[in-house]
Amino acid sequence: MNPDITKERKNATFDVEKLTHIVDGTPEKTRRRREIESLVVSDPDFKEEDPNFLSRSERYDQAVRKSAQMILKLREYGIADPEEIYCYKNCVHPGRPEPLDLHLGMFLPTLLNQATPEQMDRFFMPAWNLEIIGTYAQTEMGHGTHLRGLETTATYDAATQEFVLNSPTISSIKWWPGGLGKTSNHAIVLAQLHTQGKGRGLHAFIVPIRDMSTHVPLPGIVVGDIGPKFGFSEVDNGYLKLENVRIPRENMLMKYAKVEPDGTYLKPPSAKLTYGTMVFIRSMIVSLSAKTLAKSCTIAIRYSVVRHQSEIRAGEPEPQILDFQTQQYKLFPLLAMAYAFTFVGQYMNTTYQRISGDISQGDFSELPELHALSAGLKAFTTWATNSAIEVCRMSCGGHGYSRSSALPDIYVDFTPTCTYEGENTVMMLQTARYLLKSYRQAKDGQQLSGIVSYLNEADHRVQPQPVAARPTVVDINDLSSLVEIYKLRAAILVELAAKSIQQELQNRKCQEDAWNNSSIDLVRASDAHCHYVVVKLFTDKLGEIGDTAIHSVLSTLALLYALNGIKLNSGDFLQAGLLSGPQVLQISGRIKELLSQLRPNAVVLVDAFDFNDKLLNSVLGRYDGNVYENLFEWARRSPLNATEVHESFHKYLKPLRAQL
Amino acid sequence: MNPDITKERKNATFDVEKLTHIVDGTPEKTRRRREIESLVVSDPDFKEEDPNFLSRSERYDQAVRKSAQMILKLREYGIADPEEIYCYKNCVHPGRPEPLDLHLGMFLPTLLNQATPEQMDRFFMPAWNLEIIGTYAQTEMGHGTHLRGLETTATYDAATQEFVLNSPTISSIKWWPGGLGKTSNHAIVLAQLHTQGKGRGLHAFIVPIRDMSTHVPLPGIVVGDIGPKFGFSEVDNGYLKLENVRIPRENMLMKYAKVEPDGTYLKPPSAKLTYGTMVFIRSMIVSLSAKTLAKSCTIAIRYSVVRHQSEIRAGEPEPQILDFQTQQYKLFPLLAMAYAFTFVGQYMNTTYQRISGDISQGDFSELPELHALSAGLKAFTTWATNSAIEVCRMSCGGHGYSRSSALPDIYVDFTPTCTYEGENTVMMLQTARYLLKSYRQAKDGQQLSGIVSYLNEADHRVQPQPVAARPTVVDINDLSSLVEIYKLRAAILVELAAKSIQQELQNRKCQEDAWNNSSIDLVRASDAHCHYVVVKLFTDKLGEIGDTAIHSVLSTLALLYALNGIKLNSGDFLQAGLLSGPQVLQISGRIKELLSQLRPNAVVLVDAFDFNDKLLNSVLGRYDGNVYENLFEWARRSPLNATEVHESFHKYLKPLRAQL
Repeated sequence: MNPDITKERKNATFDVEKLTHIVDGTPEKTRRRREIESLVVSDPDFKEEDPNFLSRSERYDQAVRKSAQMILKLREYGIADPEEIYCYKNCVHPGRPEPLDLHLGMFLPTLLNQATPEQMDRFFMPAWNLEIIGTYAQTEMGHGTHLRGLETTATYDAATQEFVLNSPTISSIKWWPGGLGKTSNHAIVLAQLHTQGKGRGLHAFIVPIRDMSTHVPLPGIVVGDIGPKFGFSEVDNGYLKLENVRIPRENMLMKYAKVEPDGTYLKPPSAKLTYGTMVFIRSMIVSLSAKTLAKSCTIAIRYSVVRHQSEIRAGEPEPQILDFQTQQYKLFPLLAMAYAFTFVGQYMNTTYQRISGDISQGDFSELPELHALSAGLKAFTTWATNSAIEVCRMSCGGHGYSRSSALPDIYVDFTPTCTYEGENTVMMLQTARYLLKSYRQAKDGQQLSGIVSYLNEADHRVQPQPVAARPTVVDINDLSSLVEIYKLRAAILVELAAKSIQQELQNRKCQEDAWNNSSIDLVRASDAHCHYVVVKLFTDKLGEIGDTAIHSVLSTLALLYALNGIKLNSGDFLQAGLLSGPQVLQISGRIKELLSQLRPNAVVLVDAFDFNDKLLNSVLGRYDGNVYENLFEWARRSPLNATEVHESFHKYLKPLRAQL
Repeated sequence: MNPDITKERKNATFDVEKLTHIVDGTPEKTRRRREIESLVVSDPDFKEEDPNFLSRSERYDQAVRKSAQMILKLREYGIADPEEIYCYKNCVHPGRPEPLDLHLGMFLPTLLNQATPEQMDRFFMPAWNLEIIGTYAQTEMGHGTHLRGLETTATYDAATQEFVLNSPTISSIKWWPGGLGKTSNHAIVLAQLHTQGKGRGLHAFIVPIRDMSTHVPLPGIVVGDIGPKFGFSEVDNGYLKLENVRIPRENMLMKYAKVEPDGTYLKPPSAKLTYGTMVFIRSMIVSLSAKTLAKSCTIAIRYSVVRHQSEIRAGEPEPQILDFQTQQYKLFPLLAMAYAFTFVGQYMNTTYQRISGDISQGDFSELPELHALSAGLKAFTTWATNSAIEVCRMSCGGHGYSRSSALPDIYVDFTPTCTYEGENTVMMLQTARYLLKSYRQAKDGQQLSGIVSYLNEADHRVQPQPVAARPTVVDINDLSSLVEIYKLRAAILVELAAKSIQQELQNRKCQEDAWNNSSIDLVRASDAHCHYVVVKLFTDKLGEIGDTAIHSVLSTLALLYALNGIKLNSGDFLQAGLLSGPQVLQISGRIKELLSQLRPNAVVLVDAFDFNDKLLNSVLGRYDGNVYENLFEWARRSPLNATEVHESFHKYLKPLRAQL
């Protein structure tokens, strides 16, 4: 054990294990998580070569091998609870997406939700037993977020009782679905249905794409891998071009909408249910943000107490880099954010579970608010985490740039969350639409409830032109006081966006152009709303913490999170007169105090996230702090060191001499 | 040619070719650059496989092949001017560092600067002819920015007249030097010199590391590649462990310091010259930031007029995504920044050339200011560019994540500039040291000149506690008025940092701790100083532009750059009373107008950067806008598509079925 890191752990002012339970949810959850982790970590069948030492094709190969093993072991151990499967998978492929993700996460669930009993008989068990390996083919080369723009067609031929599927243009080629390139032999294809000469909108079809026995692509199917990406190297994201591919009528997923043998189309009943799935996935992404941020902070903070560099006082030994104020200021606000997002993730999950109970009983009343919130928070947390990973990486200096730090991989595999499951700007605008609607309802005298209820007071609280005359009785050390000004800031920015739209309309713009010409303000309003929610939920969480020592350190983190958010957005607070100039200065001073206050607990605060070393897989972030010897050992295993002399010397460099 | 992009080019309000000349410097420079580019692009010897389709070892191999060719061709064409060599190299390895970079950029120049005539005879011509291939080994595993911390030792043995070199600890292993792992047979090693029982500080030694003929490592040398990194995949960054390696006395670079045969040490005369080299390299990095940002904007903006998505008005065709205000707000401020940094780079280069003339005549008077400025601007421009590349990538949605967009590679190869040649936070603090020194001089009544002369007025301009009472006669449409408030903001933040230090000292902190405890404020002051300089230099540049149409569009960009900087830092301006709340609101409105104003010229403004398609190497950024067909073509060449069925199906997936 590195003595520097040992010393740090002696400074803990609280019981680390207890904080781990809070992060996991309960002591029982911690126990079970560790049990699953050790099942995988100790299993020789999951031993792997460091993917960074492999070619793309080898990485894919290794991932398929491990996924196949994973399926076997899950059955062997009888792990069936979705949360536990997810945990197990994350140990087998730590932090990495894998080729069967869409089979397990989209193909099977879609069958469960949208297949008829007859279709379940035909497809579900074969898929469960991996005779059918499926993916979910929605996105096209030219069409992503805007589903109505999808071009793939499925035209019903009543004569043969088949659908004929086509990719009519290059931009209509299905593009991106995970597992489509090489792994799957079936795809659920989203296509524009045409029957009896009429377009009927998007529907889902089960399309066989490869021969079940030989795995060779079927006639009319052009399928392959879309090529290397920033990350996701284990996944064969694929393309699919359909050329007059015929499938039986019974392959359209017909639990809701139907096409009868003669081509008669029956509309689905209103389908708010799919709405729920989106909310669920976005909530998961919020938790993923928290986890990823926690992981990055663990690596950067542990390394920052092992690394010594430069000098603070002349002549003294080089200090741990975490003793530099600038380093603390890079990392501690992110650590605070990791805890904030952890608790937001827990809230989203709990709320989703509660509401989905209501939904299954036909009560959709709370869904719109959660839907709007999940969209905005998905964007808010993924954007923040995305930048934060890179701050963590760069805070490790040169070694952060080495793949051995794990931070490059964490970044490239996380960053797509800003784009998939709803592009972040689009998500922010979706939340804004809900906020503006609520704002107008409040203006019209309706009494709002729930998280947007602050808009009720819009009329008397928010001045048409905010003035410095607002009484500033804010206590910068009181979290509830800070929650209050975050709330007012959100209210003011929603109002500003509403006013921008109004002004555009007065300038004779149509409703849509007015919206577009105000979208900068709308995104800003959503952002402020989400920021308010995060500060509020973190503050609320403190109320649940009984342990005094933990309550104290989490309060410090919450205060740092709230104050730093104000510092970074001080223009908003000053402009609205929510804070005075001297208060903002005071906040800067207070932040510095909080950094020193957190310094002794920094390492144990990341220890509490309890990442297993094998799963963290970072030379810089090792629990024992033995960084340098392991960095050397890792480097020596690099493929370029397989031979002492690289062949290029004999091929190019030596012959060159004779020519000069 | 894609019709959307053709239409865009018809909208140009200025002569694109003329703007290209301004970006290059002169029409002659444009002509020559294109000449060199076409030499390389049309040369079949430089044909390559897309590196994204190769393994690490293959990428290294391909790069060595091309570098060897490059050396031959440079001689063949008689290209000898350093700027032209740099241009040629950048065409051969577009945007990518390569294995011989340190041989050409550090080993040869260090010989020229620090070798004695005898050493020049022994080493220079062999190195020129690549019998000797060298690198520059400074950084160690445990030591980067802080040179005095380096641990490698060179102990003089008078008995044999040799130096004995050692890596006494794991952390002292040389780590990171480019070309060290596999390519070089010599290294200039920085080590702590010991002679006659005394430490004499860091000196440079020429150490043979591999056999010149067989390329096998020499006895006592442990050398290899440090393993895969985020980027720099073509470069064999290496490690070097020295175990009692003996080199003759004559292998210490002795142009300045000397060790005589009996071990007597002769100190070097003051060496401000190395100072100059650092300034030069950092100026180059500023220009590199500009170039990289320009490249990223070119890709994102061209793609944004080809890509159609979502809807603005219901029922109408999907608009070009550049018509969304949020997309404009992501990209146009970056486009403005690319022009700003281009002109800052030109200024730094010109100033360096001018000052280095003075230096060679012994006049160092302007060096400290340029040195301080280059440190801060290196950090300011690389940080901003680093984030901007990712904004550009994500603004391209999913396809930005594909390696075919080129943006992932641009990012991973650029991001180390934030760390190397002086870690950015350290750089900012270096500039802050100069600012604080100047501030104190001004306080002491000294009259400052040059770029920090605004600190002369500190006493009467900057209030101890800034008040809203300051008369606000700022015209937000007048650049000189904006330059003025950027200047005042910088002055105020320098003063705030000074006050923080003062307060810490009053609290009985020692000078060093006071500095450390104020470093957040110091970095902020440097940042504001650099921001002021950039806005000022962009504004100054407009004065040189004769062409009315170009002057007009560049003025719009400059205004956008200045106003958006204020918007993002509005807290500073409000707090200091430099702007009022209503003015800040007005600025938000004005920014939106500038976005619409720039929209018609967006594509031609990136066209003016004049990136050759082959060198840009981005499917999304193609000049002709034919994105989709080329994306498909690129994907089909991906290695995973070499076979229709990947072997993993037969190895793992098919056998799995029988087991379930």
